[in-house]
Amino acid sequence: MNDPIEPTSWLGDSGDDCDVVLSSRVRLARNLAGVPFVGQASDPDRNEVVGIVRRSPVFADHPDGLSWLEMETLSDQERTMLVERHLISHQFADARFPRGVGLSADKRLSVMVNEEDHIRMQSLAPGLALRDAFQRVAEIRDELESTVDFAFSPRWGFLTACPTNVGCGIRFSVMLHLPGLKMTEELGRVRQAAKDLHLAVRGCHGEGSESSGDLFQISNQITLGDSEEELLDKFRDDVVPLLLKYERASRKLILNEKRTMLEDKVHRALATLRSARILGLNEGTRLLSMLRLGNSLKIIEKPGLKTIHRLLLQVQPGHLSSMMGIGLDESEEDARVVRASLVRQALEDVLQ
Amino acid sequence: MNDPIEPTSWLGDSGDDCDVVLSSRVRLARNLAGVPFVGQASDPDRNEVVGIVRRSPVFADHPDGLSWLEMETLSDQERTMLVERHLISHQFADARFPRGVGLSADKRLSVMVNEEDHIRMQSLAPGLALRDAFQRVAEIRDELESTVDFAFSPRWGFLTACPTNVGCGIRFSVMLHLPGLKMTEELGRVRQAAKDLHLAVRGCHGEGSESSGDLFQISNQITLGDSEEELLDKFRDDVVPLLLKYERASRKLILNEKRTMLEDKVHRALATLRSARILGLNEGTRLLSMLRLGNSLKIIEKPGLKTIHRLLLQVQPGHLSSMMGIGLDESEEDARVVRASLVRQALEDVLQ
Repeated sequence: MNDPIEPTSWLGDSGDDCDVVLSSRVRLARNLAGVPFVGQASDPDRNEVVGIVRRSPVFADHPDGLSWLEMETLSDQERTMLVERHLISHQFADARFPRGVGLSADKRLSVMVNEEDHIRMQSLAPGLALRDAFQRVAEIRDELESTVDFAFSPRWGFLTACPTNVGCGIRFSVMLHLPGLKMTEELGRVRQAAKDLHLAVRGCHGEGSESSGDLFQISNQITLGDSEEELLDKFRDDVVPLLLKYERASRKLILNEKRTMLEDKVHRALATLRSARILGLNEGTRLLSMLRLGNSLKIIEKPGLKTIHRLLLQVQPGHLSSMMGIGLDESEEDARVVRASLVRQALEDVLQ
Repeated sequence: MNDPIEPTSWLGDSGDDCDVVLSSRVRLARNLAGVPFVGQASDPDRNEVVGIVRRSPVFADHPDGLSWLEMETLSDQERTMLVERHLISHQFADARFPRGVGLSADKRLSVMVNEEDHIRMQSLAPGLALRDAFQRVAEIRDELESTVDFAFSPRWGFLTACPTNVGCGIRFSVMLHLPGLKMTEELGRVRQAAKDLHLAVRGCHGEGSESSGDLFQISNQITLGDSEEELLDKFRDDVVPLLLKYERASRKLILNEKRTMLEDKVHRALATLRSARILGLNEGTRLLSMLRLGNSLKIIEKPGLKTIHRLLLQVQPGHLSSMMGIGLDESEEDARVVRASLVRQALEDVLQ
């Protein structure tokens, strides 16, 4: 858990369409045949699920094998860091029954056991890379399938705890940076369009989370009636390009019509991050978002996306407490002081 | 009018108690015997006043002689700059009848003719220097008295258009920087104390002006019943030291108890001033005020008081338009852009 964030983070500085797309994620839900869903299961049932999954070849001792983390043995800080990296969900981190997660060495792939479903596999990739992410999840699925019997209905497809996942149980999502649409006040229109396209628009930590730093997670809502491949193609080729087009048009409009206002915001953001002695999570994220926009539009050259992404991760409570050696339950006042210090130092390092 | 602000400005970087006191001012009101007060006078009367004052030796052609500016011949920009330097009043700048001002070469002394009274002499000095300022005004008064007959009543003293100035017609004021009392939310208490001491507390441009950048002009209200010297001693030795004590105690308190908060504000202010591309007058003044506090408390070494004071003057509309070659009636949007540019450049020059 105390590995450096780089080079293993899925948040790189590159990837297709990285001016708008931070990352792509593919998640696949499966349940074991003949075992109650997690919500209805007893702890012995849940332990049985863990045992069955862990005996599958995905955990075997080979270079691509996943390592296993028993959730009960992790500290609050470690669990929080996994949430901040989008490797596990909030609900999974906070649950109080037998559960665990398999992680790939590059921390781009995770297999949650006993989340809402018995098995939730997900793969993350920087930029727009849904096919790559899907490929990797499919490999894990196939490996699991060689030893595990998935609950399946010929009529409905793969069975899941929540009906919205029934069918092929797949969900695609992209994390988009939409400061342009925010500034031109068109987010409302885009939300409506997304709804019409059966998409869910969420904050950067998924269901129930607020948007922070103009980051939005967009995902498909429909998992029924189409094949995984068809869903993937529709999402990747129709839906995402439309959102990218809107965001880029907004940025271009601002750049043409309000360039000075934009430069003012970007340079102030950088100056504030370089000099603040107290920095809250929301303000830090908001200012980093402005740097990201400034970098994409070439208003500033440094810091680059890599540094900005790393900081977006490190300003969060779990990573901050781990990096700076303070308790996760440190007072918010102290956390704001060390957050400011971390950001200042990181920016001095790259801007010198 | 297009002389450089330095070295002739009364806003230096030194002077006694300059951590709190920006400047001292002594103003003396006099009227000519046998001529109606300015408000009741006809234009021929007013021209007569101008003629009489201008023939006095204070305008004679010697090294200390004042130079004469006919207000009707000045541009809006020039009049605005004189107001911003506190050499003439707003009312005087905007009036529409014969009037003018005598200015010393160092721009620390001005004699307004046909302001509210026929003659208003005032002397400005950096820091706490009321006695010096008084000395200089007294010299001008004596010189004027050698050729001009002042309106005087044995019972009331020197007669003035407004009863509050009757008596010795003198007003002392100090421009104080009170960010400490503002932060500790004690300004209300200080205002009450000032009222009890018969002081007027005003914004930095005198009567009716709002405080900007935590700058306050404190002046005596009583001019009757005491000699000039007694009033001066009371103001300088009793009143001002009390206010300085309060302000310094507040700063010390903040420094001891909220040092990080203060450092955060000061460093953010400097960073913002160095990087903004759009800067409003109020924001600019507020941030410069924060730098002034930071400099006084040694949180930052540069910029020094001299630069800060110069910028406090230059961010104002008249100086800004003069320095940057834009019209005084330029759109506020354009003014904010050139203000940001001026401040950025000035700070880069001293911070390199």
